[in-house]
Amino acid sequence: MAHKIAILGASGYTGAELVRLISQHPAIEIVALSADRKAGLEMAQVFPHLRHLILPTLCKIDEIDFSQIDLCFCALPHKTSQDVILALPKTLKIVDLSADFRLRSLSEYEKWYGNPHSAPDLQAEAVYGLTEFYRDDIAAARLVAGTGCNAAAGQFALRPLVSAGVIDLDDIILDLKCAVSGAGRSLKEGLLHAELSEGYNAYAVGGTHRHLGEFDQEFSILAGRPVQIQFTPHLMPANRGILATAYVKGDAQNIHNTFAAAYGDEPFIDLLPLGESPSTHHVRGSNFCHIGVTADRIKGRAIIVAALDNLTKGSSGQALQNANLMLGEDETTGLMMAPLFP
Amino acid sequence: MAHKIAILGASGYTGAELVRLISQHPAIEIVALSADRKAGLEMAQVFPHLRHLILPTLCKIDEIDFSQIDLCFCALPHKTSQDVILALPKTLKIVDLSADFRLRSLSEYEKWYGNPHSAPDLQAEAVYGLTEFYRDDIAAARLVAGTGCNAAAGQFALRPLVSAGVIDLDDIILDLKCAVSGAGRSLKEGLLHAELSEGYNAYAVGGTHRHLGEFDQEFSILAGRPVQIQFTPHLMPANRGILATAYVKGDAQNIHNTFAAAYGDEPFIDLLPLGESPSTHHVRGSNFCHIGVTADRIKGRAIIVAALDNLTKGSSGQALQNANLMLGEDETTGLMMAPLFP
Amino acid sequence: MAHKIAILGASGYTGAELVRLISQHPAIEIVALSADRKAGLEMAQVFPHLRHLILPTLCKIDEIDFSQIDLCFCALPHKTSQDVILALPKTLKIVDLSADFRLRSLSEYEKWYGNPHSAPDLQAEAVYGLTEFYRDDIAAARLVAGTGCNAAAGQFALRPLVSAGVIDLDDIILDLKCAVSGAGRSLKEGLLHAELSEGYNAYAVGGTHRHLGEFDQEFSILAGRPVQIQFTPHLMPANRGILATAYVKGDAQNIHNTFAAAYGDEPFIDLLPLGESPSTHHVRGSNFCHIGVTADRIKGRAIIVAALDNLTKGSSGQALQNANLMLGEDETTGLMMAPLFP
Amino acid sequence: MAHKIAILGASGYTGAELVRLISQHPAIEIVALSADRKAGLEMAQVFPHLRHLILPTLCKIDEIDFSQIDLCFCALPHKTSQDVILALPKTLKIVDLSADFRLRSLSEYEKWYGNPHSAPDLQAEAVYGLTEFYRDDIAAARLVAGTGCNAAAGQFALRPLVSAGVIDLDDIILDLKCAVSGAGRSLKEGLLHAELSEGYNAYAVGGTHRHLGEFDQEFSILAGRPVQIQFTPHLMPANRGILATAYVKGDAQNIHNTFAAAYGDEPFIDLLPLGESPSTHHVRGSNFCHIGVTADRIKGRAIIVAALDNLTKGSSGQALQNANLMLGEDETTGLMMAPLFP
Repeated sequence: MAHKIAILGASGYTGAELVRLISQHPAIEIVALSADRKAGLEMAQVFPHLRHLILPTLCKIDEIDFSQIDLCFCALPHKTSQDVILALPKTLKIVDLSADFRLRSLSEYEKWYGNPHSAPDLQAEAVYGLTEFYRDDIAAARLVAGTGCNAAAGQFALRPLVSAGVIDLDDIILDLKCAVSGAGRSLKEGLLHAELSEGYNAYAVGGTHRHLGEFDQEFSILAGRPVQIQFTPHLMPANRGILATAYVKGDAQNIHNTFAAAYGDEPFIDLLPLGESPSTHHVRGSNFCHIGVTADRIKGRAIIVAALDNLTKGSSGQALQNANLMLGEDETTGLMMAPLFP
Repeated sequence: MAHKIAILGASGYTGAELVRLISQHPAIEIVALSADRKAGLEMAQVFPHLRHLILPTLCKIDEIDFSQIDLCFCALPHKTSQDVILALPKTLKIVDLSADFRLRSLSEYEKWYGNPHSAPDLQAEAVYGLTEFYRDDIAAARLVAGTGCNAAAGQFALRPLVSAGVIDLDDIILDLKCAVSGAGRSLKEGLLHAELSEGYNAYAVGGTHRHLGEFDQEFSILAGRPVQIQFTPHLMPANRGILATAYVKGDAQNIHNTFAAAYGDEPFIDLLPLGESPSTHHVRGSNFCHIGVTADRIKGRAIIVAALDNLTKGSSGQALQNANLMLGEDETTGLMMAPLFP
Repeated sequence: MAHKIAILGASGYTGAELVRLISQHPAIEIVALSADRKAGLEMAQVFPHLRHLILPTLCKIDEIDFSQIDLCFCALPHKTSQDVILALPKTLKIVDLSADFRLRSLSEYEKWYGNPHSAPDLQAEAVYGLTEFYRDDIAAARLVAGTGCNAAAGQFALRPLVSAGVIDLDDIILDLKCAVSGAGRSLKEGLLHAELSEGYNAYAVGGTHRHLGEFDQEFSILAGRPVQIQFTPHLMPANRGILATAYVKGDAQNIHNTFAAAYGDEPFIDLLPLGESPSTHHVRGSNFCHIGVTADRIKGRAIIVAALDNLTKGSSGQALQNANLMLGEDETTGLMMAPLFP
Repeated sequence: MAHKIAILGASGYTGAELVRLISQHPAIEIVALSADRKAGLEMAQVFPHLRHLILPTLCKIDEIDFSQIDLCFCALPHKTSQDVILALPKTLKIVDLSADFRLRSLSEYEKWYGNPHSAPDLQAEAVYGLTEFYRDDIAAARLVAGTGCNAAAGQFALRPLVSAGVIDLDDIILDLKCAVSGAGRSLKEGLLHAELSEGYNAYAVGGTHRHLGEFDQEFSILAGRPVQIQFTPHLMPANRGILATAYVKGDAQNIHNTFAAAYGDEPFIDLLPLGESPSTHHVRGSNFCHIGVTADRIKGRAIIVAALDNLTKGSSGQALQNANLMLGEDETTGLMMAPLFP
């Protein structure tokens, strides 16, 4: 019998991506879709690409009977998410895609997001949702906090190296190239086609991007001491895809070996042969992450490049992967579709 | 037990799209992939987006043991295809994606393609592969000829109307907007990103595009007398998607009713409410075709717009749909994935 | 001595395009730039691509001393424009880029724009700004109404033919492909990069686009009797460029001859050899319009394709061309820059 | 009286860009255009965006009477260029856009380009064409070697800092994002629209890109000792634009002051206020380079971002700027056009 799920915030890109993925899942049934301002509309009116599916009409959250729901995906904006989840049944399994439960420290949360947290107990309960590294905790969790999409890409490129101590922890530079869907369906001039296509720029330069909170937290835990990286995201004229280029000090072969050991059994992480580099073209629409390692001409330095789809592996695919674990399904169910190329 | 298939010409876009689709098919197994000039390479070297799959090494056609094969997809260039298929076992089921077996008349073939046909017997045997209209013939066929992608889009927008006689057959204008992958992986200046992005142009203007041969053949059969339409394709700065805008003389409501009757039970053809128009954004990567009908302000005229993905519904998706029929599988197996948006 | 001009509504795309063009004009000086909501900002803050220019700070309209101004460009939204111009000095030369003064008939205006006109006297005074066809009137005019960008493209493709009576006036179909900047800097979901790139769709299908008011007016004047065309615009994943494909009944050679006679001396209209078709790629950023004529395979039918840049020849370039005439300068001054390719 | 110039290799992008720029130059006349394989064609057939210009027919190099030419632009492929220039009159002024004369050391040339240099005397004579730093030498030179487009962007972002010693010379990382036109009009699968749009990837990872030869040479000269940087270029889905992100160790305010002193009087280099970052959107089609400096959150580290158009400031614009100096014209003549946005 299928697990019954609800998606809160179904009118955004991550909500739509969840519907796309779940529509092919053999053991999950969507029984409620909420979208506050679009309640009463059909999903096909908001996202015509889903018009072939039979889906519940969009509703307000308080119209949902959560006693019928096995698991709830929250694809709501930051801050809204914590207030909504606070009001949900305490026994409901939840995968949250917002930033609200990613940081363990309330003060770090307030530092990066600018407001005090309104659900500190939930914060304490939440498990960080980077599946490959918190698999057992996630399987046992009630509330899982999906990672930032940039944070996911950066961690896939760096975590095993920080853990293994094979790179200099005080000199890590992460230059990210991010597609525009990462900004969501927000109406901003800079996200208009006319202003974005055919060009690129850095943003949040100098270490001000909120996903640094996740990097700081996770890398410091792994290293057992404070670790701060440099991180500069760049906005790309593309809809999907994150390319993370990491510049590290360490031996490339050693780094490659470390990745091979860490990712050898991972169904979604694909390590390229030493000296090859991935492309976001080759992961589009999929849950895969491709990673490449190359030695620099300067001895003792290496470049790591990771590519993933921000809406899939970086967000909704990760969320479904976590939900599979929480529901006792095989982790890969509904997620093995090949990337779309060209 | 899975049906064993081969794909000849696996290094082109339609070959790769077949692999993408079949990788999710529960009852089909790929046992051979040919690519003449790339024989010996792994598919992942030619198409890194498929690197997560376990696939046979690319080989030459004559290395394939066809006695093991239940069905063979031919994704070879025009002209090559007929020569290759001529040499294949006469009992092998074949879905051909080239133009070689689309036209019933050898003289029409020669007129549009410029060379005499080298396999007239096969030509006579081949069934035209527009699934929705040749379903029973396809199920019983040994050799099925996939349609042109533009020809598919145009026929979905017009066939029921020609059959029903609800439009003026002597005044049909079809203005197509076609994505660049329709041209295949050919190395031409006009297909370079630098020359194609950010602009558009008509091509094969004046009724010289080869897919007119298919329109002429099919519409004339349906009408029981010669029918010629005007057809102008335009090259778009996009990778996937055909938008067919048809200008016809007829009553819009009548046209809409005709479509509703013709397509009501079709799993892949989706008729929008009268007055709405589809977008290629909403079919990308899927096997769906969306169709809209709108009355013009000038009485007695209507505009029909059809949208599909040229590589999926227009080519490889159609091919798999046909293969499903030929193999006794449900027609929709492996083809119900939702479109990728954004 | 330079002519002093003001640009009202400088924070939109047509305003910025005027500044781009005028920055290279030897005889025009920008002395005022207004932008209501952005008053107080520098133009470089609103449009960083203009940061190398020394420009007046953005101000509110009522801060401008119009006694110092020789000519005023109004790049304001529809409806706002008529109210603003009503309050300007009656002796001021004005080039209006909005839709407010394009239609001669007040009832047609109200029909297409939905509100009664608030400046009927100005309406009566205004000259329609399609330079190539109203050159003498424009040179003598005080108030010139810039045409719609689609209306310009369509008229370049059809006016000489309607005048000469070489095509069937009751069967003209105009299928337009329009870039996104034509919609201005508006914050709409459909104009976001994520929703617009990589796809295309028709809009205002069925004869509801407002530029039809201009086609009806102008073609009916030329023909001396009511003429209505079919017109379907399509939104393209590109920033600049209109491609107008016109389907007409008439002899292609005759049509080509008619164009050659009409446009032979035009500096900005470039007729391609019979059988060739233009591309928007080749007019980007320029004031040129390329036109091609091809005979259809069906005798007595022809396809005309016209390409121009909607922000330049379709709007701000046309406006400057008109201003040159009104100021006694050579019509081409500041407008002969070559297109940007690739 | 106009200076007479020839362009060798006019059928490539940099050749076409030279024609675009020179078409607006008041004191330069194009008297010959060569294109070996396209000799006999008109430029408008090869580049229809230039069809409004009256230009010489494309010819072979040996058909040109160089005694009539004041200056010759060579936009030929690497290696070809040195052989061609060797055969040109020794008194002819030449601006070479290829890589052939950029490196002073013959062994470095051979190391990066893989063949021995065939014109070592010319190599010795050539002046490196980064105008802002070799202005006087260029004005006096006979043969000027245009820089690599990536090399130009990287040097604008770093030279004053290397000279002033305000950054750690042993830890410079340059992450470049490059548009596709930088690869020229080459027919490669990876440059097809279908393979390039909507994604991005690093290439020449690990310090293997040839422009490193220029960085090594120039930075080592400035520093008075060997300097090697890390440099990773990334291919972007865009036609024009380089964004250079440099990660350095040094004080951001100090770096900003150093740039202000170095570039204060430069007509084409525009330093943004401290903490702001440029975008390639805002330099497209222009000869400007925008530079931004931001302090990282980690004390003592800074990020520098430079944006320019690879075909203009990075190549043909630079070439014309140099030609102006060599011909005694004002350096900015014909180069002050505003960028094209959107």
